[in-house]
Amino acid sequence: MFKSATLKEVATKAGVSYQTVSKVINHKANVSPETEKRIWDAIAELNYTPNYSGRSLRQQRSRTIGYTWEPSPPDQTNPILDAFLQSMFRTAEEKGYYLLCFPFHADDARMLKVYAHLWDTGRVDGFVISRLNYDEAIVPYLSGRKIPFVGFGRLEDDNCSFPYVDVDGGNGVAQAMDHLVALGHRKIAALAWPKDSRVGNNRLEGYFSGLAKAGLQSDLSLVVRGEGTSEVGFDATNYLLGLPQEIRPTAIVCMNDMMAIGAMQAIQKAGLQVGRDIGVTGFDDTPTARYLTPPLTSVSQPIPAIGETLVERLIELLETGTYPEPKCELVAPRLEVRESTASYVPTVG
Amino acid sequence: MFKSATLKEVATKAGVSYQTVSKVINHKANVSPETEKRIWDAIAELNYTPNYSGRSLRQQRSRTIGYTWEPSPPDQTNPILDAFLQSMFRTAEEKGYYLLCFPFHADDARMLKVYAHLWDTGRVDGFVISRLNYDEAIVPYLSGRKIPFVGFGRLEDDNCSFPYVDVDGGNGVAQAMDHLVALGHRKIAALAWPKDSRVGNNRLEGYFSGLAKAGLQSDLSLVVRGEGTSEVGFDATNYLLGLPQEIRPTAIVCMNDMMAIGAMQAIQKAGLQVGRDIGVTGFDDTPTARYLTPPLTSVSQPIPAIGETLVERLIELLETGTYPEPKCELVAPRLEVRESTASYVPTVG
Repeated sequence: MFKSATLKEVATKAGVSYQTVSKVINHKANVSPETEKRIWDAIAELNYTPNYSGRSLRQQRSRTIGYTWEPSPPDQTNPILDAFLQSMFRTAEEKGYYLLCFPFHADDARMLKVYAHLWDTGRVDGFVISRLNYDEAIVPYLSGRKIPFVGFGRLEDDNCSFPYVDVDGGNGVAQAMDHLVALGHRKIAALAWPKDSRVGNNRLEGYFSGLAKAGLQSDLSLVVRGEGTSEVGFDATNYLLGLPQEIRPTAIVCMNDMMAIGAMQAIQKAGLQVGRDIGVTGFDDTPTARYLTPPLTSVSQPIPAIGETLVERLIELLETGTYPEPKCELVAPRLEVRESTASYVPTVG
Repeated sequence: MFKSATLKEVATKAGVSYQTVSKVINHKANVSPETEKRIWDAIAELNYTPNYSGRSLRQQRSRTIGYTWEPSPPDQTNPILDAFLQSMFRTAEEKGYYLLCFPFHADDARMLKVYAHLWDTGRVDGFVISRLNYDEAIVPYLSGRKIPFVGFGRLEDDNCSFPYVDVDGGNGVAQAMDHLVALGHRKIAALAWPKDSRVGNNRLEGYFSGLAKAGLQSDLSLVVRGEGTSEVGFDATNYLLGLPQEIRPTAIVCMNDMMAIGAMQAIQKAGLQVGRDIGVTGFDDTPTARYLTPPLTSVSQPIPAIGETLVERLIELLETGTYPEPKCELVAPRLEVRESTASYVPTVG
């Protein structure tokens, strides 16, 4: 899988001396984060495999799996965190493994150092990684160093270059679209995430495929992008409600529940009834979704099963040297239909 | 701190042979969970300290702290989990430590075995423990074996027998009571947790102290107990709304936000307005509290500061052999006032 490249080729590509590359590989360099990132990028691009003589000294495996995740903003709850972690802990324990959890750092270079430290000190045998985005630095780093890992999520234009399990977000939103179309909706808007969000774009694909399947034109003025917060959902919905009658949407598909909550508030403040007048769907099926007024139709992900699969397969890789098939797997979410859509009454025109 | 007891005294108290006690201590026994629990209870009660000769063989510390927690029910989110974990991970990492996370088991005997395994194999140097309740088995076990730990939470009738940091839940509910009394409320109900919940009872103390401070009689028909779910909140509030006018409450203090959400739904279904007609307060200040209709007044806990303090103090204990003062600390939460109470209009009568 990895071609052989020399240290010098890496140095040339990164524009540094080969001594610097060597030092960075051995975590003895005092270089800027930018330089360090350039070197690791070059290592990954060239598929250079550092020769860690120290690695062979590791007599015993730690039976420990490293994991970190990006924390939620303070005004939000990660609705899947608890179930995801517990499912991984349980699965690991059954096989005599534990999870070592470490803090998330937004700075890639700092984050890579932590991964390197945990691996080089033998604290972990491998990693589960999440938060895979376009600018992903961890995947090329771990791949380049042949450190075992499995991803919860995938990269853009994925060609299954590393083992992962991911939720087919597009499938989930497409289910929401099918549901809305079946209810009679023809003008459907989407509250989407910023363009640099890989997960957000995967989900949004389901919006466009849903329109196409129903033979509906897509109208880009009905796709509003912003952070996945209730404030953005509120403002975006106010904009949508202010559109001329002939293009004003009768349903709004949101890429997460927080945006849907904001959308529902804007609809209610405008004197309209969520569900009957304007349908709203969310994504995540947060535990509170069913307690909102009205209860929110949302896309639910099979999180415990995913946590189990990730850890089972990683441990099989660690113990046998081979990652079991399928190397890359997309699991389908499920639409939970509630009153925020189900009570729609189509009006003529 | 611990008196010396003999193995035989433990055996007598537990009603088993001293060989059985010895085997249980060394995790070589094949006895029923009940017997094992009886033995550990006897060990804790008699302050017996097993002599683990193996312990002295541990050359190196692991610089790892063990932690598990009770997962949320599937229909609920633990609103403080992410912030709590990240604050512990960050604080530990700064000092060269990491957290090893392991799954929660409802069965005490099984849970104790995991603690014992992690300690005996040298995987961890100590533990942070949470979910301290009346039937707490972990505290006597860890104390008895002199395994370093610090608690997030305390036991009943606490005399500071082990190091902990806890939120002063009674103080938080008392703040809610002061706020409601200042708004003019005189008939205030409480939605409380079952009597076997230590945390729930601590919080409820603030309800009674708030009544006393305001010179109001407590009326036990206004205290409704149940699990901390929105369903219980809904049903309990329906009961309260059905009480005769002269005792019907004008405000409801809930021991968590989920109960408050149910209370708000019941009030709205009865055609009344939350805030203006009946005030409602929650506890936890879940991230969604501010997005409810109306936004919910709730008690907020300083979770990241607590995570930081727990890990800092535990590491100081591990590195110096002495737990820093204060050994036991109660931190005050803060009331976040929102529309679910602030818009109250007292009526005459």
